[in-house]
Amino acid sequence: MKGSEGRKEGKMSNRKPTIGIIMGDPAGIGPEITIKSILAPEIYSLCHPVVIGDARIVRAALAAERKDLPIHVLKGMTRTQKDSASLQVLDTKNVEPGKVVIGQASAIGGKAVFEDLQLAIRLAQRKEIDGVVAGPHNKYSVNQAGISFAGYPPLIAQLTQSAHAFNMLVAGSFRIVGVTLHLPLKEVSGMITFDLVLATIEAVQAALGRLRIPKPRIAVTGLNPHCGEEELFGTEEESVLRPAISAARGRGMDVSGPFPADSLFAGIAEKQDYDAYVAMYHDQSHIAIKTVAFERIVGLIIGTPLVVATVGHGTAFEIAGKGIANPGPMTEAIKLVAQSSSL
Amino acid sequence: MKGSEGRKEGKMSNRKPTIGIIMGDPAGIGPEITIKSILAPEIYSLCHPVVIGDARIVRAALAAERKDLPIHVLKGMTRTQKDSASLQVLDTKNVEPGKVVIGQASAIGGKAVFEDLQLAIRLAQRKEIDGVVAGPHNKYSVNQAGISFAGYPPLIAQLTQSAHAFNMLVAGSFRIVGVTLHLPLKEVSGMITFDLVLATIEAVQAALGRLRIPKPRIAVTGLNPHCGEEELFGTEEESVLRPAISAARGRGMDVSGPFPADSLFAGIAEKQDYDAYVAMYHDQSHIAIKTVAFERIVGLIIGTPLVVATVGHGTAFEIAGKGIANPGPMTEAIKLVAQSSSL
Repeated sequence: MKGSEGRKEGKMSNRKPTIGIIMGDPAGIGPEITIKSILAPEIYSLCHPVVIGDARIVRAALAAERKDLPIHVLKGMTRTQKDSASLQVLDTKNVEPGKVVIGQASAIGGKAVFEDLQLAIRLAQRKEIDGVVAGPHNKYSVNQAGISFAGYPPLIAQLTQSAHAFNMLVAGSFRIVGVTLHLPLKEVSGMITFDLVLATIEAVQAALGRLRIPKPRIAVTGLNPHCGEEELFGTEEESVLRPAISAARGRGMDVSGPFPADSLFAGIAEKQDYDAYVAMYHDQSHIAIKTVAFERIVGLIIGTPLVVATVGHGTAFEIAGKGIANPGPMTEAIKLVAQSSSL
Repeated sequence: MKGSEGRKEGKMSNRKPTIGIIMGDPAGIGPEITIKSILAPEIYSLCHPVVIGDARIVRAALAAERKDLPIHVLKGMTRTQKDSASLQVLDTKNVEPGKVVIGQASAIGGKAVFEDLQLAIRLAQRKEIDGVVAGPHNKYSVNQAGISFAGYPPLIAQLTQSAHAFNMLVAGSFRIVGVTLHLPLKEVSGMITFDLVLATIEAVQAALGRLRIPKPRIAVTGLNPHCGEEELFGTEEESVLRPAISAARGRGMDVSGPFPADSLFAGIAEKQDYDAYVAMYHDQSHIAIKTVAFERIVGLIIGTPLVVATVGHGTAFEIAGKGIANPGPMTEAIKLVAQSSSL
């Protein structure tokens, strides 16, 4: 791996990417882990972080960490305003002081997350920032704000006018994405089409390319138990998955499968045989990775022109404001976006 | 745990159970792991093992292990013929020497597995043996024999005239069973009924009772992502699972859930919060346990009056006859059956 890391560094040395960070719901642990992550020593060597959010929330989070780093409120995103002696903030002025109760869902919090994210996406689309990291939102806050929000992937697909966006879960070198995500189990089979499977594989291939993994190897799971055991318990492996995998191979990708999903992940905590895994549905992908790496999962939203990552956890209202939140996944998300968006 | 172990020993001290062991397909690793397991020093302290199979296969497996333990061919199952100075075999005389090629599927092998299993089940039904352990079968062998065989659970349900049998996977104290098993994913939702979920929970409760786990705690997963997230992506949690769990509680069982399946198993390799987990379908249960404990899974067939276990692996034709097969799961299966059938 030394060789490829050396190569990566070589490619990254020209210019550090600017990463827009939205803190997530102001009542949760998002502001705390954002500040803790940005203050991690390695971050400024990898990227220029800019918080996109209300400067008052940033100040409060800094004060809670007892850090006297000055805040530099940006007038707009221009590439010259970066230094590590101050914390760069693009002030969205959308959370009035005292209006948010720590640990409680609120319309203000939900609206702020949504506005911050939209601004970050717009800036990324205009290439004023190179990537986006999103802290945790809270579905009740978003609901209270009256916003129809089905999670980051569909929103980012919509904002970027992409046909699809997929949430690739990443924990170190274990990467896994579902062809489908948030839908009833009984609707999964109907959604598993040649086009969507191929689109998922292509999104994975592109994401691994951005991560500078040479000749990535991708494995695809079956949909049914034992891959349908020669059509005894399901036919989608033959009718959909094999043709889609063949098509991906025909386009030069190193894709294998379908493999029975239950045995594919045996021992995966120690060793991954593939650079990424494509599963068919939510619990297939999420059980595999959460069972072995629950505390350190990053969601990389793939399939769109943008580089966006989210933390794999929620707002953790129960520990918000206590100073004990683990910034690990947020730090990993920033690193992953920096690596994926380096030039 | 000392206390409950002490209690167990107290209960087990009256009489050691007699366990019938079928070797599985004679061309696979089954005979080898059977002999290796029976020769493990702890086995005779827990039970009286009796191999139910062709004595010639037993002799060959013993010779391959360079063991000169004499074989005692039983005339029938009577409880007086037990000692550990010889290997007890109930000779089924159904595999002619030289007719089976090691490492190859054959009708002879498939037929032998099926006959041995049927005899073992009959003996258990007549209480001539207390439990059954089954070595690995090979589906191609069974198919070549023209036998319609969809796996051990449905066969054992049929032979015992039980409404259901379920395959509880066990690795140490991690125990998990699916309400459904071998069917197309798209048919799962239709099979998840109040009656079947409750029957699964009751089968688990009974199995944990046989294992002498005091006041067992049982967790049930959701069917849909995030348990349907308040019916946004699926309704079975509300319409089926909660009522079934309530009914089980009403019958005095300590059952919790439904829980989102993806986060329920986080860190489970280190610590289980429940004595057993009820999942909804094959990959939900199998991914969770195979990801963390692939090498040591035993399948305990529950829901019938009998105590039957199988190894969680296949015939491993590629290493058959080489003397390198790991008897660990077979040894665990014998111990588990001994524990479950002790009197």
